[in-house]
Formats: sequence, C-alpha cells, structure tokens
Amino acid sequence: MTSRSGTLEERLLDLLGAQTAITVGTAESCTGGNVAHRITRIAGSSAYFLGGIVSYANAVKHTVLGVPEGVLRNPGAVSESCARAMAEGARRVLGSRLAVATTGIAGPGGATAFKPVGLVYLAVAGDGMETRVEEHHFAGDREAVIAASTERALEMLVEAAGHLLGEDARA
Amino acid sequence: MTSRSGTLEERLLDLLGAQTAITVGTAESCTGGNVAHRITRIAGSSAYFLGGIVSYANAVKHTVLGVPEGVLRNPGAVSESCARAMAEGARRVLGSRLAVATTGIAGPGGATAFKPVGLVYLAVAGDGMETRVEEHHFAGDREAVIAASTERALEMLVEAAGHLLGEDARA
Repeated sequence: MTSRSGTLEERLLDLLGAQTAITVGTAESCTGGNVAHRITRIAGSSAYFLGGIVSYANAVKHTVLGVPEGVLRNPGAVSESCARAMAEGARRVLGSRLAVATTGIAGPGGATAFKPVGLVYLAVAGDGMETRVEEHHFAGDREAVIAASTERALEMLVEAAGHLLGEDARA
Repeated sequence: MTSRSGTLEERLLDLLGAQTAITVGTAESCTGGNVAHRITRIAGSSAYFLGGIVSYANAVKHTVLGVPEGVLRNPGAVSESCARAMAEGARRVLGSRLAVATTGIAGPGGATAFKPVGLVYLAVAGDGMETRVEEHHFAGDREAVIAASTERALEMLVEAAGHLLGEDARA
C-alpha cells in the first residue's frame, strides 16, 4: 500500500484528489492536531479533507465526539474502546466517509502502572468497512511518539482509502 | 509580550501551566491543525489546552462551530466575520476561556479577484475581553503562509492570556 514514493499525505492526494466519493476526517488526542496538519500541508487536500477534532480534554471527547462517559472512566481515554468511539464519533460529527483517531500517552507525564509512555491506540472507521483498531508501543520521547503515531495513523487512512476505492469500483 | 526567550508555545506554558482559571481552544481553517500541534508539542500543555476544531470544509464551520450560513455565503469563509464567529464558536463548543481562530487562503489555489493567496484573518475570543480580529497579508508559498499564520495566532493567544491573567489579578 505504501510502496510508492512520496509521503503518506501525498499518497492520500494521489488516491483521493480526483474523486468526491471518499471524504476524510480526524479525531486526535495524543497527536494534538499533527495528523490534520500533515494532511492539509498538501495543496489540494480540501477536495477530500473535511476537518478534524482535537479532543485533548476528556470533556471534549465526550461532548464533541460522543465518547461515552463510561468508556472514559473505564477502560479510560487511552484504550481500544475510546479510539474506536473517537473515530466513529468523528465520522458522525464531521460527516466524512472515513475518519482516523489517535489516543495515547505521548509522555513524559501521564503514564500509569498499566499504561506506559508510548502506548497508543489508533482507529480508522468508514462507511462500508468495519472499524479497525490497533495498539502500539512506540519508543522514544514525546516528539518521537507523536511523530510515529501520526505516521501510522496516516498509513491506516491510506490503506482504508485504498480499500474503499476498491469496494466502490467493484460495486 | 514576546520578548522573552523560547517559542510562543513555551511562553504559553510559562503563563498558563501552573494555573487552572484560563483554558485554551482553537478553531483552524487555513492552518489545518498546526496551531493545536504547536501547543501540544509542549509537555504539560494538557493543563490548559482543551482541544480544537479543524474546520476545513464550510459545512464543518457551520455545523460544528456555528458560523452562520449567511456569513459563509457573504462575506465568505475568508473574512473578519467568519474568523470572529469561529473563535467565539470554539469557545462555546470546547468550553474554553480563550480560543483563537484562523481562516485564510494558504494557496496556491483558492484565490479570487478580491482575495489573494496569503490573505488571512485571525481572531482571539475570551471570556472577560472583547474579541480581537486581525487581517494579514502573508508572503510566500503555502508552507510559509501556514507557518506565519500559526505564529501570529499563537502570539495573539499569548497576548490574550497575559491580558486575562492581569485582569484576574486585579479582580
């Protein structure tokens, strides 16, 4: 999926720049807006990128994205359930066909006994596909965790966009 | 206001990191998430940064931030009125005491006869202050316009945070 040259955000333009059926949104916690920034660095991204929610505070995850309060209490904001709810909530709020979500512990603070720095959940949700969630343990400092989370989130978006384009072509 | 050393996002941490009365949100169009990304690069920013809305599509400016459809039609999304409505809408949606908004033409596409590439409106709204809006004409390519818009938006946020801290101290 990612064997072609160029950055992932350039791949997204290659895939989606000339069509209107697949639009994209983001819901970011640990990446803090960097996924949306990477997508929108590319001229032409407004053809498919509708927008994003940076839900840093749990209250924003709940009130804007509709993450259930029960999920935020347990298993908590850094969890598979929260990533899934964020991605699906972003699709609903932004009206996009695809949405990617990031939630994790970028560090250096915020770690607990069971949730170390570098623990990140990523999810991609789309109309016409099952929501996919991944757990990662990224190494390095805050900057490295944000960069690695952003990179994999963009890759999941490219993969999902390719999948939906294939589904649409078969339909 | 910005004479001290360090980046603007570090200045924001210096000002707001040790208090809880002033929280911050963002509403970004032309900067596409870069303002939120800059703020959240800094460890400790979760003490005051609640979140942000990247409202790239006009539909998101309207449905999520509450920018009136009449404003989006005329004078349009790249206008003082839209920047003001975005900042005030972000405060309402995110529940933050302060919010900064960006809307403009990063280029290379999107320019019109009356709205050239580099035209950017920035607004900062806060509880306890009048909303401030600025019109800028930034030079350079897409990357330069995004960087300059982000820098000035952060500077306006630092100035407004300093103002509110002063007001609170007097009260």
